[in-house]
This record gives sequence, structure tokens and C-alpha cells, in this order.
Amino acid sequence: MTRNVYLLNGPNLNLLGKREPEIYGSTTLSDVETNSATLAQELGLTLTALQSNHEGQLVDWIHDARDNAAAIVINPGAYTHTSIAILDALSAFEGPVIEVHISNVHTREAFRHHSYVSQRADGIIVGCGVQGYDLALRRVAGMLD
Amino acid sequence: MTRNVYLLNGPNLNLLGKREPEIYGSTTLSDVETNSATLAQELGLTLTALQSNHEGQLVDWIHDARDNAAAIVINPGAYTHTSIAILDALSAFEGPVIEVHISNVHTREAFRHHSYVSQRADGIIVGCGVQGYDLALRRVAGMLD
Amino acid sequence: MTRNVYLLNGPNLNLLGKREPEIYGSTTLSDVETNSATLAQELGLTLTALQSNHEGQLVDWIHDARDNAAAIVINPGAYTHTSIAILDALSAFEGPVIEVHISNVHTREAFRHHSYVSQRADGIIVGCGVQGYDLALRRVAGMLD
Amino acid sequence: MTRNVYLLNGPNLNLLGKREPEIYGSTTLSDVETNSATLAQELGLTLTALQSNHEGQLVDWIHDARDNAAAIVINPGAYTHTSIAILDALSAFEGPVIEVHISNVHTREAFRHHSYVSQRADGIIVGCGVQGYDLALRRVAGMLD
Amino acid sequence: MTRNVYLLNGPNLNLLGKREPEIYGSTTLSDVETNSATLAQELGLTLTALQSNHEGQLVDWIHDARDNAAAIVINPGAYTHTSIAILDALSAFEGPVIEVHISNVHTREAFRHHSYVSQRADGIIVGCGVQGYDLALRRVAGMLD
Amino acid sequence: MTRNVYLLNGPNLNLLGKREPEIYGSTTLSDVETNSATLAQELGLTLTALQSNHEGQLVDWIHDARDNAAAIVINPGAYTHTSIAILDALSAFEGPVIEVHISNVHTREAFRHHSYVSQRADGIIVGCGVQGYDLALRRVAGMLD
Amino acid sequence: MTRNVYLLNGPNLNLLGKREPEIYGSTTLSDVETNSATLAQELGLTLTALQSNHEGQLVDWIHDARDNAAAIVINPGAYTHTSIAILDALSAFEGPVIEVHISNVHTREAFRHHSYVSQRADGIIVGCGVQGYDLALRRVAGMLD
Amino acid sequence: MTRNVYLLNGPNLNLLGKREPEIYGSTTLSDVETNSATLAQELGLTLTALQSNHEGQLVDWIHDARDNAAAIVINPGAYTHTSIAILDALSAFEGPVIEVHISNVHTREAFRHHSYVSQRADGIIVGCGVQGYDLALRRVAGMLD
Amino acid sequence: MTRNVYLLNGPNLNLLGKREPEIYGSTTLSDVETNSATLAQELGLTLTALQSNHEGQLVDWIHDARDNAAAIVINPGAYTHTSIAILDALSAFEGPVIEVHISNVHTREAFRHHSYVSQRADGIIVGCGVQGYDLALRRVAGMLD
Amino acid sequence: MTRNVYLLNGPNLNLLGKREPEIYGSTTLSDVETNSATLAQELGLTLTALQSNHEGQLVDWIHDARDNAAAIVINPGAYTHTSIAILDALSAFEGPVIEVHISNVHTREAFRHHSYVSQRADGIIVGCGVQGYDLALRRVAGMLD
Amino acid sequence: MTRNVYLLNGPNLNLLGKREPEIYGSTTLSDVETNSATLAQELGLTLTALQSNHEGQLVDWIHDARDNAAAIVINPGAYTHTSIAILDALSAFEGPVIEVHISNVHTREAFRHHSYVSQRADGIIVGCGVQGYDLALRRVAGMLD
Amino acid sequence: MTRNVYLLNGPNLNLLGKREPEIYGSTTLSDVETNSATLAQELGLTLTALQSNHEGQLVDWIHDARDNAAAIVINPGAYTHTSIAILDALSAFEGPVIEVHISNVHTREAFRHHSYVSQRADGIIVGCGVQGYDLALRRVAGMLD
Repeated sequence: MTRNVYLLNGPNLNLLGKREPEIYGSTTLSDVETNSATLAQELGLTLTALQSNHEGQLVDWIHDARDNAAAIVINPGAYTHTSIAILDALSAFEGPVIEVHISNVHTREAFRHHSYVSQRADGIIVGCGVQGYDLALRRVAGMLD
Repeated sequence: MTRNVYLLNGPNLNLLGKREPEIYGSTTLSDVETNSATLAQELGLTLTALQSNHEGQLVDWIHDARDNAAAIVINPGAYTHTSIAILDALSAFEGPVIEVHISNVHTREAFRHHSYVSQRADGIIVGCGVQGYDLALRRVAGMLD
Repeated sequence: MTRNVYLLNGPNLNLLGKREPEIYGSTTLSDVETNSATLAQELGLTLTALQSNHEGQLVDWIHDARDNAAAIVINPGAYTHTSIAILDALSAFEGPVIEVHISNVHTREAFRHHSYVSQRADGIIVGCGVQGYDLALRRVAGMLD
Repeated sequence: MTRNVYLLNGPNLNLLGKREPEIYGSTTLSDVETNSATLAQELGLTLTALQSNHEGQLVDWIHDARDNAAAIVINPGAYTHTSIAILDALSAFEGPVIEVHISNVHTREAFRHHSYVSQRADGIIVGCGVQGYDLALRRVAGMLD
Repeated sequence: MTRNVYLLNGPNLNLLGKREPEIYGSTTLSDVETNSATLAQELGLTLTALQSNHEGQLVDWIHDARDNAAAIVINPGAYTHTSIAILDALSAFEGPVIEVHISNVHTREAFRHHSYVSQRADGIIVGCGVQGYDLALRRVAGMLD
Repeated sequence: MTRNVYLLNGPNLNLLGKREPEIYGSTTLSDVETNSATLAQELGLTLTALQSNHEGQLVDWIHDARDNAAAIVINPGAYTHTSIAILDALSAFEGPVIEVHISNVHTREAFRHHSYVSQRADGIIVGCGVQGYDLALRRVAGMLD
Repeated sequence: MTRNVYLLNGPNLNLLGKREPEIYGSTTLSDVETNSATLAQELGLTLTALQSNHEGQLVDWIHDARDNAAAIVINPGAYTHTSIAILDALSAFEGPVIEVHISNVHTREAFRHHSYVSQRADGIIVGCGVQGYDLALRRVAGMLD
Repeated sequence: MTRNVYLLNGPNLNLLGKREPEIYGSTTLSDVETNSATLAQELGLTLTALQSNHEGQLVDWIHDARDNAAAIVINPGAYTHTSIAILDALSAFEGPVIEVHISNVHTREAFRHHSYVSQRADGIIVGCGVQGYDLALRRVAGMLD
Repeated sequence: MTRNVYLLNGPNLNLLGKREPEIYGSTTLSDVETNSATLAQELGLTLTALQSNHEGQLVDWIHDARDNAAAIVINPGAYTHTSIAILDALSAFEGPVIEVHISNVHTREAFRHHSYVSQRADGIIVGCGVQGYDLALRRVAGMLD
Repeated sequence: MTRNVYLLNGPNLNLLGKREPEIYGSTTLSDVETNSATLAQELGLTLTALQSNHEGQLVDWIHDARDNAAAIVINPGAYTHTSIAILDALSAFEGPVIEVHISNVHTREAFRHHSYVSQRADGIIVGCGVQGYDLALRRVAGMLD
Repeated sequence: MTRNVYLLNGPNLNLLGKREPEIYGSTTLSDVETNSATLAQELGLTLTALQSNHEGQLVDWIHDARDNAAAIVINPGAYTHTSIAILDALSAFEGPVIEVHISNVHTREAFRHHSYVSQRADGIIVGCGVQGYDLALRRVAGMLD
Repeated sequence: MTRNVYLLNGPNLNLLGKREPEIYGSTTLSDVETNSATLAQELGLTLTALQSNHEGQLVDWIHDARDNAAAIVINPGAYTHTSIAILDALSAFEGPVIEVHISNVHTREAFRHHSYVSQRADGIIVGCGVQGYDLALRRVAGMLD
């Protein structure tokens, strides 16, 4: 069976390391994807890393994951709080789903406290910086083993 | 005058018949579109069937309908509950608009109970399974006659 | 097995066609019941049509339907929004229940947006005028077949 | 044209003068109806006085008033706060509607602060004791003149 | 002084033992009334058992109880949550009032968590199945002694 | 004992008959004060009529009423909904207080549905046009007699 | 199998009979425990009676009950409204749980209307004074038989 | 340093002048863009005018503005009320941001009263018709000078 | 016809430039009034500039504007959020009304997010500093032309 | 530096000792001012005591205090709960501000539980009767020392 | 009669002077207790000072105070906002209760704005730093005298 | 510097593996503590593992951690949702704090969706089963390195 993991990043995460470093740090998305691929290999996983600012594109990719991935690690960015479409797409995916937020969303504005995605996610990792992606991959490995 | 009807389906409805069959049944979107075209013909209507996971694409198509359609039948999927953009686009369309939901959204999560689209729809058909599309076309015919 | 359908109309629907025609049109309840009986026959159904302004009477009739009907089509009028007793009675009925509202309740006062009956109804048809009763019977036929 | 006024009293008002005199005083409903008839005559009006504990009965009588009355004075008792059916019936009545509450409902429990009937009433008289019925008849006369 | 107790059951309780047995069990209302009469006799009480689906009828009976009963045991069914009229009627009754619910309403839908009747009841017995009626009679006896 | 009544009108009522006549009619405040003085005389009362757009001025006058008036008839205008200071001043007045609103505030914006003054008023007369002042004086007379 | 019942009383119930007698009566906790033991014996049950003002202590005792009791009768006092820890502990207990409140909490402050414990309790007995403990034991006996 | 301004218009604004003229007037988007370019020139600014119905496209363009613009004037249309993604993108832009709404959103439906974009905007211009774009450019000039 | 504009400033704006300069800047109210008069002249308008900390005074001046002004520019200060009296006064004024806030109220405390005045204002200019008064005058000129 | 303290009392406090003595006691405002002056002297402070029922007047005096006082002790009466204007004025004052309420506002109506003034006050003294003014002066002295 | 005062401090106050000095200052709890004892002596009072992080322990000590204290000064720390048990314990104490908060809780997180203890406290002293304990003792003395 | 980590478990976690295994799995707390100690060693950390059902005890231990630990990993169980005292204690701790929940609390009852502890936690790991403790330790190591 496939051990491929989709690593999906949502809107504005292409700016990671370039905007508001006091919240998000200075590691870029490219760094994250490279580091995650390395760790994935250690854990016996492969990685498909994708980023989009378009809600519909993220939905399309989650549909693709039904055929091409054993698990999804997703940082939905702002769509966390507004997208039922992404929640519904994830509900049609059968493998593990781990939700990641780099900053601690619970100490920010109230509208960042609720996540539609958490209604479907198996695990949720919040406020662990970019290390959160590593922890998510470890949990994926733990669930697939 | 044109008797063309736009049949618009929103996010995740491309998976119809393939996901959560206990909620949505096993008929595929392709089946729905074929059956609807047949019934449309019986009712003296023509049909343009379109599906997208992209909110903006649905808005674009609704704008197109201003020139190309006498009525719209729309199942906005998750955008039902989150898209004011679709509501505004429909408000700029002058013919009948019928909103369809396959499942009974009122017995599901609270965030599925409110529909922005219902602020503009003429008729709303909920929980009648894929037969709901047939009923919607019959209502369109009733309104256009 | 019986193919009888209870067509129940709640408070103020005896005035149909006589009050607020800009909301409800000019067809009378008697017209609706006659037209529905005709369509029922086409669909291989029989019809028992009843109207009351009394919540308790509607509850009694729903209890009767347990022995005498295969399905219920109900427009609960104002009791839609206030009667848990009718919801409970419908929950004790095992066949299909289709809820009908002539006008689009979602564009009227906020207190008309919530329906207790929708917690039990299989299908809900809103804003399709008196044609809504026809659509409801078609759905009943679809469910019983 | 008729100058008849329907004086409708809702649930528990048959106990007027017999229960909780510290809230409602010691005048009985029969006293109220007699006094109102006398004042009506002075004002060139006639009076039909009715009381019921049944919501449906009140709806039926309001329907009757469409043919038999030029105005309605109504103390809907507890149905003030819970009956949309009575509101809808009153909306189908075209003459003046005056709503009366004997006690000051705004200093009692929160659920007595909202009145569905006030959505339709022309005038509302609260906390004037049984004299409120007199004031209501004077207002009816003022509106019919 | 009279030791008669009114045992009032509200809407849908005539179906007790016939509907949703996983919630309400299989004892019928007739069984309940018989068993309650037997226990009443043991406790030196007499019993008048009544059931109606009509809110107004229940109000009428509570008024009757002012003359004919020393206490009321009432399971208001769905009217628990919607009837201020019954609350007001009970407020005009001077003896003990015990409210009974067969199932644990607090683990069901949110709209079943609030009881208007509890604003007046002396004691409330919830979730004790049909044995709840027995406990209520014992409490009545305790209060009257 | 004094039979003097303070007739207090709040902000914008100096424009009565001059603004939004579809809501408030065409009678001026001066007309109202003249008519009220005439009726007061009939009822054996005297009248002190005052109007201000200043909350503090209204508070001052209510304090004066403690020495100079047996009752207060007050239309607090917009301060109805925002002034706890006026409520507190009225609470320090011991005679009858009747609150008047010319239009039916309950069919206007939601922020007009709540009245601080109603927490203290004995009687409240709403939506009876300028005749409401007459009804208020009659109630004052009824209470003082 | 054991027929032992844990009778747990929460904070401030050690003052029973000593504080606010107009709400709680004059029977002491010691009286309650003695009377309950006597009734338990009649019903073929044994009783372990415990009281604490410490939430954690109550949690510990509920854990103990997993080994030592067939049922729990609990009056959680103020922790009723604030302790999810006690709810979780009770959820780990498999026998009958009956919740008792001496006074009618629904006529007191709003914060006393919600009970976390009711999410787990099988039966709830409210406002029956100290006789409530007797009724609870009778229900336990009814459930264990 | 660049004096270029991004003029971004969101969903349905391509229909400006073509839909609901009673709300939005008859000037087209093309007119607006031409007029704005003229005024920009007068103010020593250049203009890049863009419109999309796609939320993701707007996010992409705001990212582009980080390199290509000194300020943003944005009418986010319906996304004003639903898009945290656009808010986050704007938060990563360092120059002045002016938000424009052609109509007075505060007198329309409640869901149009809240703007996510206002959390980031420096200035907000509402209900000034298409002249609002002019005022926005003047403010941009004022801030850049 | 008159081209006079009332420039009204509410409570605490007399301290402009003297308090909390990080929010309001260092321009004084006198500066604002002088600059506005200059711009008014350019635009073919005259200006009457007034400031008060008294709600009633502002109401009085708005009444005066009915006779003396073609338009009103108003910064209601704290009364923005609390004064229905000012809203009602403005509703009795028939010319253009432009509301100005110097700071971006939507990024401050929640109670500053709602404006009663916006229910009547034609245009609203927020967060543009003291330049906002200029923009408001330009909009007035645009509307009067 | 000045050691002068402004002692400001808001609406209805001129009636202190004359109204509702069960809430406010029988000491008059004049007594309070005299006693406070005496204590001020002991503490090395001087006192300017002022009272008004006018919100605008209180704002004006707080502005005066910027030049004439080192600290403010204020009992804003009803304006506590409704006046953002007073809050804003106090925010422009730089010395200590102590808020005093004679009665325990938290056991009174819900609308008395929130204080705008507390957003700025340094210290708040509630329910200590007229001794609260003494405690406030002591705190002022503590802060100035 | 005893003049002993219980000075109770709740959770985390043992860290006073050691944590978050920008909120709480640098005086330690030991300093507070010493200073309070000195002032108590001046006022003719004695003092029993106790601190615990355990809610149940605080309840126990309040029970003890029924026998050993004439008054309670309490800073309940975080239990202010969550403990109904402490409120109930204080309700069983008959002497004066003064609640103290060192910081101004009303300018901190929303969950710190509500105090259960204030439902029972006679006086409440907020934001006066550790001097608040002194003021509380002075109020106790004032009440006991 | 110390590399010791406090591993704190709150109420009912002593039952881990023994209650509701469908939610929490079958690993016991003892297993968790052993596995965590092993991983800690790998990561160059030491571990102090503690569990209590008492809120006050947890507060005490967090205070101890100020002297004895470089970081805290805490699963506060039910106190997550109710304990401000634990939040305040953690706020007085200066090292990393990682919050762990074994199950996905966001798909359970609404009262489990809010965490006071998240207001202070640096990282939050939810729904990763007992592996969540491992991930938390890895994050601690990441932060301390």
C-alpha cells in the first residue's frame, strides 16, 4: 500500500518566512517542504508538497489525495476558519488527517479560535512553529504503522 | 425566449455517489445530469450542466447565465453556508432560482442550517435526494409557463 | 400495503387564497386539495386532506396516520416554528414525511427561519407556491416506490 | 358599516379576579365584559366578548371577526409570547387591533417581554389594570371615527 | 380535606409504550394510570387520571383541579418547553405540583432542556422511567402529610 | 392634595408634526399640549407641559415633579432606550408614571423594542398616535381617584 | 453482586439544617444519612455516606465506587454547575447514578439551571427536599432489581 | 520610490452599472477605472486596476502588490465579510490600504455590517458611491506625501 | 439654494490635538475648522462649525440645520455609539449627512464598532485622520452638485 | 504640585439621602461633601466637589480637571453604564481616577453590572456605602504619595 | 462579641510579589499579612490570615469563620470567577464580607469581569493594589462599629 | 541549566486505559509515564511525572516547577475547560508549556472546545492519542535546544 503523504499549505503560507516573522518565524515554505521530505524518508514515507491561495484548488487536491495519498498533513491557513468546502473534501478522504497551525491561534483574534477542519482532523498540532510539520509527520507514521 | 436552464453544482458534488453514500446515495453527478437533461426535454427546457469546486468559477457562471439562461437550479454545496459572493451574483440574475440540497441539512451540524442562497432563491428543495433536481426542474417549468 | 397519504394543513391555511395574496397567491385550500387528489391518483396514491387551526387536533390526526397512511405531507403553518408536540407526533410515525411551505420563509421574519418539523421531515419544499404540494406528492411516490 | 368590536381574552383570563389578585386585581372577567359593553355603547360601538384557553379557538374567532367585526381588542394572555398562529390570524384581519395587558409585563419574567401580537397590533396598552380595556375601546373608537 | 390527586399527561403520552421504546420503555399509559391508582390508595390518596394532546384542554383541567384536587402530578410532554399558558394555570393552583419526565430530557435536544413548568413546580422528577410517577405520588403524600 | 400632572416630552418631540409624518402624524407638540390641558381640566387635573432634547434637563424636571406633581406622563423619545438616568429619576418619584409612545415601537428597529423607563412605569401606551396622551391622562385620573 | 450504594454530598451540604433554612429546611446531613441508611436496609441495599467540600475528593470517591458500589446517589452541591471533572468521573462508573437537589434550582439564579452531572445521571430528583434522597434510593432499588 | 497604487475590485463588481442600479448607480467598472487613472495622474500616482470574482486571485494580486505598489485601494465586495485570507494577505502588505464600499453597508443586511478587511485597513470609505474611489485615492496621496 | 454646511463635532473633540496624539494626531479642532472653511470656499460651500460635549446641544443644532444648512458633516465622537437621539434628529434632516471618524474605530474596543448614526448617514469616512473632514466636504459637494 | 481632588457625582446623586434609603442610606450629598473635605484635609489634599445630572457637564468638568486637579474621585451614577463620552474624557486625564458606587451594583439589575468608566479607572470601590468616598480619598492619597 | 477578621487569599496569591510584578507589584503576601495585622490592631480588630490554592480548603475555612470571625476579607483569586461553592459558603456566613482584587480585573480578559463572590459581598475593592486590603479592613471596622 | 520536565496529568487520567477505551485507548497512565521517561532520556531530558484529581494540587505542583523544571507538559483533563487557577499558575512559570489532549476535544461536547490553558500554552497537541505526549516532549526539546 502507498505510504505517500500530501502536505498541503493554504493561503498566504507561500509568504512563510517573509511576513510577520514575530508570529511565523523566518523559515520559508521551501525550507519546510525540504525538511519535511527528509523526515518523511526517515519515517518510510514519501511526500507530495503543494500550496495554493485558492480554496477550490485545495479542494481539488484533497480529491486527488483519495487516489494518491495514504494521509494528509494540512495547514489550511485562513481557510481553517471559513471553509466548509475543505472540511467536506477531507470528510471524503479515508486516511489520517493531521491539521497544523504554526502559531498559537487561541491567543490571537477570536475568529481564529474555531476550525472547521478540526471537525474532521484526527490530530491537531498548534503553536509548535514549523516543527509542527515534523510532529505531524511523526503522528502520520504512528497511525499508518 | 430562451428556455435554457443552468444546473450548477458546487464543491464536492463531483464526488456524488462516491463519498458518504449513507448521506448522499449512490447516484453519480453524471447520472444526475443525464437524468435532468431527459426530464428537461420532457418539460420543454434545455439544460447546461456545470460543476466546480471554485467559488469564483460559480460566480462567473452565474454571470454568464444572465445572457444564456432563463432559470438557475443550484446546489451550492458547502458554499451555501459561506458564500455571500454567490448570493450577490444570484441577486443580479433576474429569472427563477431554485436551490437544491440532497440531504436534509437541518438534521446535520448547526452550521449547515443557514443558507445565504435562500435569501435570493425563489424555491428551496431539501432532503429529497437526487430526485430533488427533478422537482426543481418541474418548479422551473411551472414558473416559466 | 396502503398507498394513502395524509395531507395536513395547519393554522390559517383555511384562509389560503383569501389573505395576503402577495405572499400566498389566490388559489384556495379547496383548490389545493382537489388538485392534489387528482395528482395523487395519477401517482397511484390516495389522499386524506385535513386542516385545523388547533395544534392538538393536528397531533391527533398524525396519531391516526399511524394506522391509516403510508406517508404524510404537512404544511404546519405557524406551528412549524412553535410546536414540539407536532414534531414528537411525527417522530412516532414511520413512513415518509414531507414538509411544505408555500412562501420562502427564509426571506421573512427571523422567527420563521427555524422549523421544529424539519428535525423529523424527510424532505422539505419551500417557496414553490401551491405547486409545492405537487412536488411533495411526487417525492412521496418516489419514496414509496 | 358595522361598528362591532370583538373583545377576545386568552388563556387563564377566565380566572381574572380569582387568582393572584396582587398582580391582576379583584375585578372578574364578567365585570370587565359588562363594563366594556357599557362603554362601547357610549362610544357608539357594539361588543362581542369571548374567552378561551385554546389557541386554535382564538384563531377561529379571529377568522370569524373578518366577517363580523370592525375592530379587535385582544388580551392574548400567555399566547402573547408563544403564538405565531394568532399573529398570522390577526394579520389576515384588516381593521384596528388593540392589544391589552392588565399587568406591566416588562417588570415580570424575561419571557413575558416579547409579544408576537405586537408585530401586528396598531396600539398596545400595558399595565393599566382592567381600565386598559376601556382605553383600548376609546382608541378603537378614535380609529374608526 | 380532599386527598385527590390530578395525574395529567400531555401530548403524545397516549402513545406511551407504543412509540420509541428505546426512550420511553414498553409500559402503556393505561398501565401507568392503573399502577398509580394502586399506589395512591396505599398512600391514602385518590387519583383522577387524564391525558390530552390539546394545550387548552390541559389548561381547563388544571383550572378544574382548583376545586377538585389537593395536588397535581403532571408530565406536560412537549408543552413543558413551549407552554406559558400551562405555567400560568399551574400558578393559579395552590397545592403541591410535581413535574415528571420519563426520559432524561437533559441528554436530548437543547430545546428540551428548558421547562416553563419548572418555574412553578415544587418538585421535578426526571429520567426515572415510569417509576417517576410513583416517586411523584410519594412526594405528594409527603407534602400533604 | 395636588392633582397636577407633569407632561414630559423628550428629544425630537419638539418636531412633532414636522418630521416623518407617516410615522408620527401631523399634530404638533403644541396641539398635543393644548389638547391635553383641556382634557386634564375635564378630569379634574392640572397640567405642566415641558419638552427638552437634553437628558439632564429631563432628569432635573423629574426631580422637580417630586414636589410639584401627583403624576407624570412621559414620552421619553430616544432616551426611552438609552437612559438609565431617567429611569433612576423616575424611581425616586412616588406617584403614578405613564409612559407613552406615539408609534408602535415594536414594529421598528430592534433597538427600539427595549425601554428602560418601562422598568418603572405603571402603565405603558404604545402606538395609539397622539391620542395616547389622552389615554395616559385618563389612566392617571383613574389611578389618582 | 454488591448492593452497596455510595451516597455522596458535595460542598456546603455539611451545613445542611444549619444555613438558609428557608431554602434547605432544618434536617441535618447526619439526619439524612441515618434516614437513608434505614430506608436502604428496607430496600435490601447498603449505604456508604460521604461528604466533602473538595472537588478532587469527590472525584477520588467516585473512582472508589467503581470497585465498591453498585450505584451512586449524588448531590453535587455547587459543583453541579461547574465541575466537568465530576461528570467525567461519573462517566467512568457503570452503575445507576441518581442526582439529587434539595431545592428547586430552576427557580433560583440562572447559573444554577445547568447541571454538568445531568449529562451522565440516569435520574434527577429536584426540589423534593430531603425526601429527595429517599426517592433516589427507591429509584436505585428499582433499577438494580 | 514607486507611487503605483493597486486598485482591486472583488466579486460581482464587474457588473457595476449593470445590476441593482438603485443600490450601485449606473457607472460601470470601466468608467471607474478610467476616472481613477485620471485622478491618480493628477495626484502624481500611477494605477494598476484589477478585478476578480476569485478570492484566491485577489490574494495572489495582493502578494504581487508587495513588490509593485506603494498602496492598495480595495473594494472587496462580498469577500469583505467572509475572507480572512484577504485580511491576512493585506497584513503582509506594508503600505497604506484604503477600503471602499460604494453603498452604505450598515443599512443593509446584518451580515454586511462586519468587515474582516477593516481590521487591517488604514482608512475606510463607505456609501460615497463611485466617488468613494476618488476619495480613497486622495487619502492615499495624503498618506504617501 | 443655500450651500451652507454644518460641521458638527461631538464630545471630547475640543481636546483634538491635545489628548492621545498616537490615536488622534496633533492637529487641533481649531485647525480643522479653519482648514475645512478654506476647502469649503474652494468647493463653493460655506461652513458653520460647532462643537459640544452635550448630546442635547447637538440635537438642538441638528434641528437648526433644517433651516440653515444644505448638508451636515458630523463626527459624533462617543455619541456615535450611544445616541439614538442624534440619529432621530438626523433622520429629520433632509440633506446629505456625512459621518466622520478620525481613527479606525473598527480596530479599537468592540463598543466602538457599532454606530447609530450610520443608520442615517449617506456616507461614512473612517480612519483617514483629520483629512477625513476634507473628504467629507468633497462628498458633500459631489452630492449637492 | 497641586494636591487638589475633583469629587464628581453624577445623575440623581443630588437626591442622596432623600430617595430609596434602603439602597443608599440617609446621608445627604452635602454631608458626603463636607465629610470628604474634612478627610481630604487630614490627608493633605484639597477638594472640589461638583454634581450634575447632565452628561455633557460632567465631561466639561473632567476636561477642567486636566488643569485643576491631581486626581478624580467619581461616582458617575447611571452614566457609569451608558456614557462612553465620560470614559473618553477620563482617558484624557492623566492622574489617578477612583470610581465609587455606594450600593453593590452587582446584586442589582444586569444592566448595572457593566461600567464603561472601569475601563479607565485605576481603582473601583463598590458597595461600601458613603464610606466608599473616604476609602477613595485614601487611595488617592496613597497613589499621589 | 468577637472582633476577629478572617483574611483569606486564594490561588496563586502565595506568589504575590514574585510573579507578574507589572500587574501585582512587589509586595509579598507575608508583607500584606503583617501590614494588615498592624492596621487591624489600630482599628481594634484581630486578624487570622490564611492562604490556599485549594477551593475546598477555602470553603472549609469560611465554614470555620462562622464560629471564629466577625467578618471576612477575601481575595478569591481565580476562584472569583469560577467558584459557586465559595459563594455558597459565604452565603452561610452572617457577618460583613469584603472582596478585594489587587489589579483592575475589568481591564483584563473578559472572563475576569464576572465575580460569583460579588453576589454575596457587601463591599468590593478593585484595582487599589495591596492598599486594597487596608481599605477593606477600614470598611469592616466601619460596618462592625 | 536543568533539563527537567514536569509531566502533569489532571483529573480522571489515573483511569487512563481503564475507562472509555473507545475514546482514550488501552494504554495506562503508568505506561505513558514509563514511555515518556524513556523518550525524555533519548532527548537529553529528565522527567517528573505527577497526577492528581485536585485542582489545588496541580496549582501547587506548577508552583514547584518554577524551581524544579525547565518545561511543563500538561494534560489538564477536565480542568482544561474550567480552571483559571491553573492558567494563572502557568502564567507564573517562565519556561515552555505544552498542552496535550489525547482525544480530539473539538469533536466532543461544546464545553470541551474552549481551553483556559491554551491562553498560556506555547504549543497544543490534540487528538494524537498517547503519542501526543511523545510529540510534546519532542517540542520541549526543540524549544530548549
